[in-house]
Amino acid sequence: MSIAELDAFIDREFPQVHVDGRIYAIEDLSSGQAVVSITPQERHLRPGGTVSGPTQMTLADLAAYIVILAHIGPVGLAVTTHQSINFLRKPEPGELIATCSLLKLGKRLAVTECGIRSRGSEELVSHATATYSIPPRES
Amino acid sequence: MSIAELDAFIDREFPQVHVDGRIYAIEDLSSGQAVVSITPQERHLRPGGTVSGPTQMTLADLAAYIVILAHIGPVGLAVTTHQSINFLRKPEPGELIATCSLLKLGKRLAVTECGIRSRGSEELVSHATATYSIPPRES
Amino acid sequence: MSIAELDAFIDREFPQVHVDGRIYAIEDLSSGQAVVSITPQERHLRPGGTVSGPTQMTLADLAAYIVILAHIGPVGLAVTTHQSINFLRKPEPGELIATCSLLKLGKRLAVTECGIRSRGSEELVSHATATYSIPPRES
Amino acid sequence: MSIAELDAFIDREFPQVHVDGRIYAIEDLSSGQAVVSITPQERHLRPGGTVSGPTQMTLADLAAYIVILAHIGPVGLAVTTHQSINFLRKPEPGELIATCSLLKLGKRLAVTECGIRSRGSEELVSHATATYSIPPRES
Repeated sequence: MSIAELDAFIDREFPQVHVDGRIYAIEDLSSGQAVVSITPQERHLRPGGTVSGPTQMTLADLAAYIVILAHIGPVGLAVTTHQSINFLRKPEPGELIATCSLLKLGKRLAVTECGIRSRGSEELVSHATATYSIPPRES
Repeated sequence: MSIAELDAFIDREFPQVHVDGRIYAIEDLSSGQAVVSITPQERHLRPGGTVSGPTQMTLADLAAYIVILAHIGPVGLAVTTHQSINFLRKPEPGELIATCSLLKLGKRLAVTECGIRSRGSEELVSHATATYSIPPRES
Repeated sequence: MSIAELDAFIDREFPQVHVDGRIYAIEDLSSGQAVVSITPQERHLRPGGTVSGPTQMTLADLAAYIVILAHIGPVGLAVTTHQSINFLRKPEPGELIATCSLLKLGKRLAVTECGIRSRGSEELVSHATATYSIPPRES
Repeated sequence: MSIAELDAFIDREFPQVHVDGRIYAIEDLSSGQAVVSITPQERHLRPGGTVSGPTQMTLADLAAYIVILAHIGPVGLAVTTHQSINFLRKPEPGELIATCSLLKLGKRLAVTECGIRSRGSEELVSHATATYSIPPRES
């Protein structure tokens, strides 16, 4: 699927993604990888102006969902079965970029790895892995 | 700390917890355990009316933070270093209850386990573990 | 399956389990739970006489496999897709007991939780979760 | 530390690593990364000739320990506090290569990521992350 097709699919199937406005953006798609950004709002910050852990987990989950959809097509029923995240450094209060790669895309399971950085920084802010259960293809 | 003391601490240190109104409630505190609930809003739901994974992760993270604070006192700087969650069943769109236990409370690290259920149900909806880094006590 | 049936199945399908002699024992089976012990050997210890992390991971993996088999019957092809373990305290060099519970037993996935303690101690030494992929039942 | 210094340190501090002979080898060290291999023995295999999950976990744990030691020097007391591993594909019965990178090297915690492949293959067999607790440097 293209970025435009994914955006359209998410608008249609997951309008909740945009409940706070269009703060998430699919920045790039390539073979086995997706890059997704978030522009945090006040609600996503923590004292000292860092971006909250749950905001990072949400971004990682969305980026994983997007890289899977991009490769298997619009399967609304793909569901997260596991997510694990290591918080490495407190990010600046600005934009975060998640670079998410497919470690495995099987018939029943997909496994992804996601590195999150502040826009313009090389340093990892957090690192997540996720497993998605994929419904039978014919559905 | 008591429930009232924890509520007051969170109001003061983490007003963002209540950005969507008072949807989280500390329902019980006992030795090594805390019970925290969320009353989801439209923004926390997914198609079909289930509660989103990130909402469950956020609840588990808050419950872990609360059980740790309840035992070490108000240490605003305790930070999550790792969270892992297994999504087991799609919950009903109603209230979720997180029962969070301390597996370890060390000088530098605390490890918690959290089971999430729908209000009134025995079945686990999800199961999370988290690790918190605890700042030197004198701070 | 009974303890005797499980022992026989493992002897037949996984003789490697006993490569170091009969150091693992299924101590108890009940609804949704299995208790499995290990009697560590020199090779399983670390300086200071503690039991190694990989030994604990191996015990947790075996206990998870056993509780699943006990409930779905002899399915040699059930495979671990994910394991996560938190090491909480250094155990004594003696026997370890893993108490493993089914968090979910679905058609395609089983999720287990496992607490490891030293024989005779209440304190958790480590805590593990695992996910197993279950082959189609007809196989 | 150099490969020779690490080999000597492990021989001295962790002779158990070689309990089955010299099946582990540090193949490469570079900034933030270590490459460690295992030549599995019969005991490490499973029916069908694949390498067991616990063998892969043990390799990932050793490789993480080595990349940390290589950067902080010989600190025998660094201990694993958490390990998570996703099993992606059944490996061939031959050598496995773990490429382990430092995601974070802090004062108190180090976090590593480890990809395991069969010798000569590009495909990931498994992917692990681990957290180590680092003792105060003066020790």
